[in-house]
Amino acid sequence: MATTVITGIGELTTNDDALGTLTDAALVLDGDRIAWVGSASDAPAADERVDVEGRAVLPGWVDSHSHLVFAGDRTAEFAARMAGKPYQAGGIAVTVGATRAATDEELAANLRAHLDEAAAQGTTCMETKTGYGLTVADELRSAKVAAAADEVTFLGAHLVPPGEDADSYVDLVCGEMLDAVAPHVGWCDVFCEHGAFDADQSRRVLEAAKARGLGLRVHGNQLQQGPGVQLAVELGAASVDHCTYLDESDVDALAGSDTVATLLPACDLSTRQPLPDARALLDAGATVALAANCNPGSSYTSSMAFCVTTAVLQMRMTVEEAVRAATLGGAKALRRDSGEGAVGVLREGARADVHVLEAPSTTWLAYRPGVPLTRAVWRKGERIR
Amino acid sequence: MATTVITGIGELTTNDDALGTLTDAALVLDGDRIAWVGSASDAPAADERVDVEGRAVLPGWVDSHSHLVFAGDRTAEFAARMAGKPYQAGGIAVTVGATRAATDEELAANLRAHLDEAAAQGTTCMETKTGYGLTVADELRSAKVAAAADEVTFLGAHLVPPGEDADSYVDLVCGEMLDAVAPHVGWCDVFCEHGAFDADQSRRVLEAAKARGLGLRVHGNQLQQGPGVQLAVELGAASVDHCTYLDESDVDALAGSDTVATLLPACDLSTRQPLPDARALLDAGATVALAANCNPGSSYTSSMAFCVTTAVLQMRMTVEEAVRAATLGGAKALRRDSGEGAVGVLREGARADVHVLEAPSTTWLAYRPGVPLTRAVWRKGERIR
Ligand SMILES: [Zn+2]
Ligand SMILES: [Zn+2]
Repeated sequence: MATTVITGIGELTTNDDALGTLTDAALVLDGDRIAWVGSASDAPAADERVDVEGRAVLPGWVDSHSHLVFAGDRTAEFAARMAGKPYQAGGIAVTVGATRAATDEELAANLRAHLDEAAAQGTTCMETKTGYGLTVADELRSAKVAAAADEVTFLGAHLVPPGEDADSYVDLVCGEMLDAVAPHVGWCDVFCEHGAFDADQSRRVLEAAKARGLGLRVHGNQLQQGPGVQLAVELGAASVDHCTYLDESDVDALAGSDTVATLLPACDLSTRQPLPDARALLDAGATVALAANCNPGSSYTSSMAFCVTTAVLQMRMTVEEAVRAATLGGAKALRRDSGEGAVGVLREGARADVHVLEAPSTTWLAYRPGVPLTRAVWRKGERIR
Repeated sequence: MATTVITGIGELTTNDDALGTLTDAALVLDGDRIAWVGSASDAPAADERVDVEGRAVLPGWVDSHSHLVFAGDRTAEFAARMAGKPYQAGGIAVTVGATRAATDEELAANLRAHLDEAAAQGTTCMETKTGYGLTVADELRSAKVAAAADEVTFLGAHLVPPGEDADSYVDLVCGEMLDAVAPHVGWCDVFCEHGAFDADQSRRVLEAAKARGLGLRVHGNQLQQGPGVQLAVELGAASVDHCTYLDESDVDALAGSDTVATLLPACDLSTRQPLPDARALLDAGATVALAANCNPGSSYTSSMAFCVTTAVLQMRMTVEEAVRAATLGGAKALRRDSGEGAVGVLREGARADVHVLEAPSTTWLAYRPGVPLTRAVWRKGERIR
């Protein structure tokens, strides 16, 4: 694979504090890795040269939360909600029915289409989840389909299937279902929320997953304050996602841990929930990630730029904080922020995931809301846009 | 020019109530006009056939409020505001300096780039304003440059130039400046706001413009409740724009008039103002338009989709109301909603301005926030995307 040097960079976001602020920066890609970052005048020779003519360059978005193994859509439910009907977790069952009825090929094609759609908008690393199967067979095939994403999370504990007993279903998840699925996934997640799984049930699922060597993630505090955050921190989860309703002890727990608080503002807007208090988390010292939560029910967007825009305009995050949360923050939530092949950073040895904006600075992501600003994208060194 | 028939339409928004809901609809474009709308089975023959394969089709966006005769940008001011510094109208003076220093060719190229950027996102009819010249010569050349837009508004009364006396400047605007500019524009606008022009000054400008046969528009009630709305209604302005702070008598006045309430939600978000109370206006029976207010200071976006998304998710407009406000509403604000060559509607004789979404229905504009959904665009019958 040839080497490429990117020059003419107007503003470079590396997320690597050791690199400091570079003026007249250049980047060299070698195969699927970043081979060099520095001042253009010192750049080594490369096979190809791309002059980005003053545009901003940053790591590709790392979208650490999506639910893309699904079939069907829920346009009608969304329209009804916008007409005043509140969001209820039960809507998930509609997607479960459509997903079970779909073939593996249909599920894979739908996932591929959404990954490609996200990549065209600068998302170069994406997590996705099972959770619309809710039987051993359907969760297993969902996990296998999900392997097209960078990280795969098992979310058998998304919802108690309608008509089933909650504790019996948790037994199934913790036993036979995890046995079948664990070899195919890196993570286990649970929807710890009133109407889904309570603290005890959530703990059982997470402990069973931990015993099988899986990393942990939690959906928590989405619709009301609850035990999700504390449980995530206690069990050493990499991330607790939503965090829309936090009390002071939740903020303190996150700030004192390496559990990432993953905020999903497009979901909050799409369900007419308040936006999370990002400032409280950041000011307390918690690590914050932004993710799109692409799913057909509560947040059907693949636009990380929309999340960044919203975070700046409406959540009082600075542009720098929001961009970092949508790149390095997501990488931390996936424990992919360091070492060879790291994502969310641009430094020697990191994955060659590069996003060039149609803008001189990342500030334009908020200054120009809604304008498509993705100009060029490299993923694993391959130019995909 | 050849005729084109568009078939395979999944959902057709015509904004013409007489057409009712068409199933299996088709559209025929002939030159720059819509020649026919009806059921595909009845469609007349055409030279070319475009099958949109189940996608939604609607009129191109009509963006009735922009300030695109300018030079420079105000990224630093925006970033400062996001860091907590409040928006003040005085920032306009920065753009005035840059605009005066630019050549006509530079201003024209910048306008062209923004019109093209908007068109690529489905905006097929756009108003723009002068207002960064603020001398007779600079307002005159701004008006001439602005002729590249569909509608041109004179906004000499944008701001009192720093260091000048307000009443003397109003004398200039009402006399020599209007004399020079009036032959080149269709509309006159005034920024009726504390810090810009008061009610008496605004009235003088609008009456002088009316006497010269210009249509009237008003910037009003942006930063606080004020006299702008009542003045606009009293003088028969086509539109009063912003309407962020309205009292009950303002809503009643708008509902009892044919002055359009043009809402600019991207501006409110970009200046951290509250969003306007669209529901109060709609429920009272006022005509509402949505516009992007693209300008380098308070709202640097060309994305009408972002405005529609925000209106639905955060202003409790239905998708149908928001889409109508961003098409027919804008057309009404420009008095272009009826007759031959009307915009914002799809019916026989209307301008062939057609927007095809990468979506089965317009609901996806809110269901999929931030995802670029413009698939194809015809403007005056020409396929531009
Ligand atoms: Zn989720
Ligand atoms: Zn304006």
